[in-house]
Amino acid sequence: MDAAFAIASQTQSPVAGGLPKAQDMTRHLNRMAKHREASALKELYKYMTVPGMSNTVSFTIPKYGPNPRDPAAIQLSTSLQYQPATGPPALPLFLREFVAKVFKPAYADWDVLINVGATDGWSKICGMLLEIGDAILVEEWTYPGAENTFIPYETERVPIKMDGQGLLPEHLENVLGGWDESERGKKRPRVLYTIPTGQNPTGATMMADRKKAIYEVCQKYDVVICEDEPYYCLYTGEWTPKGSESDMSILAQRKQKAEKKDGPDGNQAFLDALPPSFLAFDTDGRVIRMDTFSKTSAPGSRLGWITTSPIFIERLTRATEASTQAPSGFATALTTRMIQQWGFDGYIRWLRGIKATYNMRKTWLCDTFQDVFHLEFDSGNDLFPERSRTVTCYSKQTKSLWDEKRGLRGPALITFIPPTAGMFVFLGIHFSEHPDYYDLLRRGEDATFILTKKLWEMLADNLVLFAPGWGFDAGGEHAIGGKGYGYYRLAFSVASYEEIRDGIYRFSQVLDKFFRI
Amino acid sequence: MDAAFAIASQTQSPVAGGLPKAQDMTRHLNRMAKHREASALKELYKYMTVPGMSNTVSFTIPKYGPNPRDPAAIQLSTSLQYQPATGPPALPLFLREFVAKVFKPAYADWDVLINVGATDGWSKICGMLLEIGDAILVEEWTYPGAENTFIPYETERVPIKMDGQGLLPEHLENVLGGWDESERGKKRPRVLYTIPTGQNPTGATMMADRKKAIYEVCQKYDVVICEDEPYYCLYTGEWTPKGSESDMSILAQRKQKAEKKDGPDGNQAFLDALPPSFLAFDTDGRVIRMDTFSKTSAPGSRLGWITTSPIFIERLTRATEASTQAPSGFATALTTRMIQQWGFDGYIRWLRGIKATYNMRKTWLCDTFQDVFHLEFDSGNDLFPERSRTVTCYSKQTKSLWDEKRGLRGPALITFIPPTAGMFVFLGIHFSEHPDYYDLLRRGEDATFILTKKLWEMLADNLVLFAPGWGFDAGGEHAIGGKGYGYYRLAFSVASYEEIRDGIYRFSQVLDKFFRI
Repeated sequence: MDAAFAIASQTQSPVAGGLPKAQDMTRHLNRMAKHREASALKELYKYMTVPGMSNTVSFTIPKYGPNPRDPAAIQLSTSLQYQPATGPPALPLFLREFVAKVFKPAYADWDVLINVGATDGWSKICGMLLEIGDAILVEEWTYPGAENTFIPYETERVPIKMDGQGLLPEHLENVLGGWDESERGKKRPRVLYTIPTGQNPTGATMMADRKKAIYEVCQKYDVVICEDEPYYCLYTGEWTPKGSESDMSILAQRKQKAEKKDGPDGNQAFLDALPPSFLAFDTDGRVIRMDTFSKTSAPGSRLGWITTSPIFIERLTRATEASTQAPSGFATALTTRMIQQWGFDGYIRWLRGIKATYNMRKTWLCDTFQDVFHLEFDSGNDLFPERSRTVTCYSKQTKSLWDEKRGLRGPALITFIPPTAGMFVFLGIHFSEHPDYYDLLRRGEDATFILTKKLWEMLADNLVLFAPGWGFDAGGEHAIGGKGYGYYRLAFSVASYEEIRDGIYRFSQVLDKFFRI
Repeated sequence: MDAAFAIASQTQSPVAGGLPKAQDMTRHLNRMAKHREASALKELYKYMTVPGMSNTVSFTIPKYGPNPRDPAAIQLSTSLQYQPATGPPALPLFLREFVAKVFKPAYADWDVLINVGATDGWSKICGMLLEIGDAILVEEWTYPGAENTFIPYETERVPIKMDGQGLLPEHLENVLGGWDESERGKKRPRVLYTIPTGQNPTGATMMADRKKAIYEVCQKYDVVICEDEPYYCLYTGEWTPKGSESDMSILAQRKQKAEKKDGPDGNQAFLDALPPSFLAFDTDGRVIRMDTFSKTSAPGSRLGWITTSPIFIERLTRATEASTQAPSGFATALTTRMIQQWGFDGYIRWLRGIKATYNMRKTWLCDTFQDVFHLEFDSGNDLFPERSRTVTCYSKQTKSLWDEKRGLRGPALITFIPPTAGMFVFLGIHFSEHPDYYDLLRRGEDATFILTKKLWEMLADNLVLFAPGWGFDAGGEHAIGGKGYGYYRLAFSVASYEEIRDGIYRFSQVLDKFFRI
């Protein structure tokens, strides 16, 4: 193993690198029967295979199809020719069905527009909505790839505080309500960029109530909500710590059982478990949603789509004509034919398989944390203002000091939100507990920065590669850590069971050594 | 036949709609043996078939190749995964060989960057070079698709006069030398957009001397030359009117003969016949060249590349990361493997086949003009200031008036430059010869506009569809025709021999009726 978590390859696709082959599955199942992950693997195997069907989908795309006027027709003679910027009719045809059934927009005349991936979509949205020097609302931790797109517009980022459920509507209200244009020398922001599901890097997911509250603030101040949802179909729900399965509510157990069913009932239970899209509350047409095939079929396909109101679709179509034009006909023809082969239900079945894969990997990761650290649940601290959903980790090497009755224990080392979607866990490390922390401060040094860098290097020397958190810091205030916390992002998207366990074990050993425990 | 020339489908690709199938070729050859086009068809047929080889290139792209570290390796496991913005190494590897051998840049450290087609490339170049409100130098007739990309930057177009060889360096010098920043309220333009080969819409091609003169003016005023070369490999050379073959110079005849050879000698003769790229004169690194696979393999592939200095390549790579990222892995994998299968010489052979196709269609078109109109060569008039390379058409219905000895003839109807490359012929119609022209002027009407629109409608009613010239008018001065000329662009890219002849015959009949001849 070269690295337990590789930054460069954190978002591998299930097609290109992810889902185990069917023939390897039985071997896996036997080898891992002793772990509780075996049930997840069984579940995954179920979605990956259709009785009596080959595991490989095969199809041929003709040069001339039998009925070229059929809007669902896919043929090379049109796919490889110039096309309108909206691409071949067959793909939007499927996407409209998907959006209607899955995202359920609150108004009737929404439409979709395909693009060459969500980054391209976001680039066109920025071109449409931003003037030079505008301010833009972002989560306090956000995806630097999205920032790279708007920074050339000399855009000022306005970070909004988060908790374990993402953006805080109260802080959004404070920022917008308190905006003084003459004092700031800038118009009040009119654009919000958010990753509602499996937020990158925090792993937080906004559920219905949170989204509703944010939508209302955006209505009040006329803000356009740009929701970037690469991880939406990778929503896995809460992690249930080992030994607490029986604590689950009857409703949660019933839902989990319903989702294990095959066929339409199981598909419906999968769809019902997804968080509602901002589109479902969008009575004004102020939401622009970005989706991508990168996380569900292949990142290399460079294919995604935007769902929004016709007024935005029209402008974005013009922008598409003057830049990328329609996505590659190779990508649209192959992806569309694959989905047509499956049909809507087959595509949902495929997404359930992906969910099972990511849920399995997330469970492996969180379970390993439970195995190698002492965990305290819902402990909350000023890393995450809301107490719920957080987990704080203590070293097991401090076991001699650990005495629950007397309340004695070693220092808190890590706090994180167990991810509910996506591919990432975001760790806050309590560097203020490090023996050198206050010495460094006294010497006028940036203690948190120094310790974050030092630990990252020690981990890298031990072949554990984390993404340092400062790259995701939208406001820059976390990088210079006044409160003594440092951050790293871990990806569990491609690692095997053995790699994850090995990596986290090694991480805990390095951590003990680093904190001199 | 629905329309002799369809605007919507003027630039069909050879793969998707163009080259005749091998099995149809013999039939064609027999049927057309009486036309001089038969020799062109024979030539084409030669390039399309390799003795002992199937006409179809077949290959398989493996999920994992035998040697993934080979820079020329193409495998799905990397093509369908996230890739650097520069794409798979194998494609730039080939393109660097192609650029070095075909464009021969005048400096050593140039590089290439792939993109999702020339429009995408141009969009990124505009983002890199233009500030809001800048002025940009363009040909007086230009491609509106390129304008759509920079118009949102509130860019002011500065049209430069053209002749049958494209941009006039003297006018470029006048405009730049006479630029008064305080008077214009704008900085002197620093960017020139040009289509040097088979210019869209005029069909003009700049040869070496013209390019050298323009490059010197751009050096003097520090202008970046952006050369958009979709039609470069579609350079066909001059049209030889029927009956004038024996007038060709010995040198020209020798060149034509050399190009008919198969193998490396013929390939080299093809390359030697191409106009030199601006890159070949670029001692400063001020040229940004755009190329595309749209016109040589398939427009639907959405694949192209930029060749320029490393300073521009670096900035464009950053822009690519923040927008499209690498082109679709489906497009790069399939295109690269196809080219690898052929090798450099095989790709040049393919391009020779395309040249033969377009040359054939161009000859059909020009020959048909010669059949249905009286032609006068190098007649020159104020439509095109340089007398050479122009052809003026008179109606054959005025034959009774035609008496060369007495110098009597009917009115001049059309002047055009026989195209030397590309897919277009640009016609200037002498509306000042129309019986109503002066009446309309006296009534204060825009006579040229009215007559251009009326003729277009009459042609459309007769299923002949031209693109009106005003869409290509960069300065707006040609649309309000003070001199009494109106313009249309014809495409000969996809039409068959019968369609071209039928369309032009019908055009001449409508013209006679319209001019009341």
